[in-house]
Amino acid sequence: MTAEIIAVGSELLTPQRVDTNSLFLTRKLNECGIEVVRKTIIGDDRQRLAREILRARESSDVVIMTGGLGPTLDDLSRDAAADALGLKLVFHQQIVDWIEERFRRRGRKMADVNRRQAYILEGAEIIRNAQGTAPGQWFEDDAGILILLPGPPRELEPVFAEECMPRFEKIESPYQYYTVSMRVTGVSESDLDQRIGPIYSAEQRVATTILSAPGDIQIHLRAKAATQAEARTIAEELAVLIEAELGQQIYTHKDEPLEEVVGRLFHEHGMTLAVAESCTGGLLAERITAIAGASRYFAGGFVSYTEDAKIGWLGVDPSTIDGHGAVSRETAAAMARAVRDKAKASVGAAITGVAGPGGGTETTPVGTVFIGIASEGGVDVEERQFGGERELIRSLAAQKTLELLLRIVRQGR
Amino acid sequence: MTAEIIAVGSELLTPQRVDTNSLFLTRKLNECGIEVVRKTIIGDDRQRLAREILRARESSDVVIMTGGLGPTLDDLSRDAAADALGLKLVFHQQIVDWIEERFRRRGRKMADVNRRQAYILEGAEIIRNAQGTAPGQWFEDDAGILILLPGPPRELEPVFAEECMPRFEKIESPYQYYTVSMRVTGVSESDLDQRIGPIYSAEQRVATTILSAPGDIQIHLRAKAATQAEARTIAEELAVLIEAELGQQIYTHKDEPLEEVVGRLFHEHGMTLAVAESCTGGLLAERITAIAGASRYFAGGFVSYTEDAKIGWLGVDPSTIDGHGAVSRETAAAMARAVRDKAKASVGAAITGVAGPGGGTETTPVGTVFIGIASEGGVDVEERQFGGERELIRSLAAQKTLELLLRIVRQGR
Repeated sequence: MTAEIIAVGSELLTPQRVDTNSLFLTRKLNECGIEVVRKTIIGDDRQRLAREILRARESSDVVIMTGGLGPTLDDLSRDAAADALGLKLVFHQQIVDWIEERFRRRGRKMADVNRRQAYILEGAEIIRNAQGTAPGQWFEDDAGILILLPGPPRELEPVFAEECMPRFEKIESPYQYYTVSMRVTGVSESDLDQRIGPIYSAEQRVATTILSAPGDIQIHLRAKAATQAEARTIAEELAVLIEAELGQQIYTHKDEPLEEVVGRLFHEHGMTLAVAESCTGGLLAERITAIAGASRYFAGGFVSYTEDAKIGWLGVDPSTIDGHGAVSRETAAAMARAVRDKAKASVGAAITGVAGPGGGTETTPVGTVFIGIASEGGVDVEERQFGGERELIRSLAAQKTLELLLRIVRQGR
Repeated sequence: MTAEIIAVGSELLTPQRVDTNSLFLTRKLNECGIEVVRKTIIGDDRQRLAREILRARESSDVVIMTGGLGPTLDDLSRDAAADALGLKLVFHQQIVDWIEERFRRRGRKMADVNRRQAYILEGAEIIRNAQGTAPGQWFEDDAGILILLPGPPRELEPVFAEECMPRFEKIESPYQYYTVSMRVTGVSESDLDQRIGPIYSAEQRVATTILSAPGDIQIHLRAKAATQAEARTIAEELAVLIEAELGQQIYTHKDEPLEEVVGRLFHEHGMTLAVAESCTGGLLAERITAIAGASRYFAGGFVSYTEDAKIGWLGVDPSTIDGHGAVSRETAAAMARAVRDKAKASVGAAITGVAGPGGGTETTPVGTVFIGIASEGGVDVEERQFGGERELIRSLAAQKTLELLLRIVRQGR
């Protein structure tokens, strides 16, 4: 079976926005053995949308539209689908009741415009959306399947996973797919490719995708075969070869970020962590606490952005800063020690650096970052020189700190 | 003039890859007054590509294809374009010479497959690519303009900027565009649309886009007219009406986030800010320090994620927490006062809440957030009940705090 995804919304045709819903949908469709053959992004234009639905239904079995189900006048997916199929939209009081209930729980009243969201294609099934006001719609006829889904990812993802996937799994496909994923830190994309390129290119039955983010690389090995078991064997045999090459640089095989793995290991070893951040300004603490349950191992953090905060809050000796500078090996070590002591934590991590664009000097140019890790065994400081803009430097500094914490916590000290 | 972008490549239909070339192209095309009305992503399939080129040329003036110009067998853009136009591909020895020279400079020999890159559509202009082996192609006939560009961004971007932009600038467009933007906080998308929908829908000459993020909405009013001056007048007249409706909820007319506006006002008023975060875990500090120059007004932050940190680091009275709970009006007020005092800042902001998914109780369910703002005038606490997942709750809490800070700092106290 083949599928097309149509992302709806003029904002997706601006220079600022990409459609990311289609990535989630593609992964899920592939899991059901459905191939995505085309993705389209169209603005809020009823005629264009209607034409596109017709064209897509002619060439693919499944057409998924995302977005354009909101309550406003430029939410046109419902009308465009009705135009394309030559069907009426039917008003469902039940949907209005759901939306009203949703507003009531938040102590608010439903606006009149939301009644637009209660119109469903004649003959379509309503797909309940527990996360938002717009229900999805599932329409099926001889020409294929047409699905309308809400645009916000936090609504679309559960609606698709819980309501659409079970329906697709009942439909049979000639191919099965199996994917092995791994995430790697501490290696550049080109080094990685030089090391594992020869390995994965030798396996034609696996589509290998390498997705690179600052300091973090995802590898996906997707095998296609007649049966799920066969696809799995092919993918896993290749994974073993790649694992042998990358070793400890692989930090997980699941879809989880580094901070989640680090946090789990801290918790498992009964260890606690405190952080002191200068140039990253809270980014490290924010990543750590983004994981639910972080309070089990995260003792807290200081954003000691100024010298006063480093001295007055953390208790760094002023002479350390005066003698070596706020961005120095010595200050990073002192910050790490100070935050570990103050929080009575097993490990203290500290970051001080120049994120730019201003503030660089001859000896400590923009991108210079010192990372201190204080543990029972003493203090280690790592010096790095990162390239790029402010945001990238901050992000690489936080990532490198998590990588150093992973190393510490894997040893359980 | 309208344009469509067709990104070619099966790798762009995997769950891991998005097409980002189109963002660059959209920005550049918009600068020339050309509107992008559609983006499509198609795999390496000659028939599908040819059909798509035909369809796109029927509906838009300019069609840009990116990718599929490499030397391998699955690089099919040249052949597909020839099929669609019913034209031959013509071999150019000159291109082979360029490619050979390129390899020679790198001490390598050109592979035979690269000869495929020397085929150009009959009647097309060759667009020189200084960064790679694949030249671009510019084809023009009565149906419009068809451009083939190499896929790698570091090749596509200079080729488009240096070779295509000057050609577009010579083409006179019957229309000029002018955009007025504004960003709004503290109002939901549906409330906003109810208030301004009737205003903007009455102005047909302006395309209004509403882009909604948690707690933050962007409004873009793009007017189209014969001259730039006329487009500007139309857009600005509409903006005045919308401004009258939204008033202080508009925080900027520029492309800048709320934390940048708040920071600028703090700096202009010579005020300083310190923050204490519990459930947001550093997110607020991270947003504030993401802006270069934040050290001029940001005194620092505490991520007091545990009770120990609230008491030991911030100096909140343990009886406040024992008596009212860590997530309470009283604790938020105490945290705000404490961080203001500790940092000797003009304003102290504190956030305490339940981000979930665990930790909720009957009286303080998941999503309950108290925001305390301490200033010279005393302490205000705002209680909120946010819906959604952990990430959304944290993000809404940080956004709401910035909104309260905006209110304080606008008054200059």
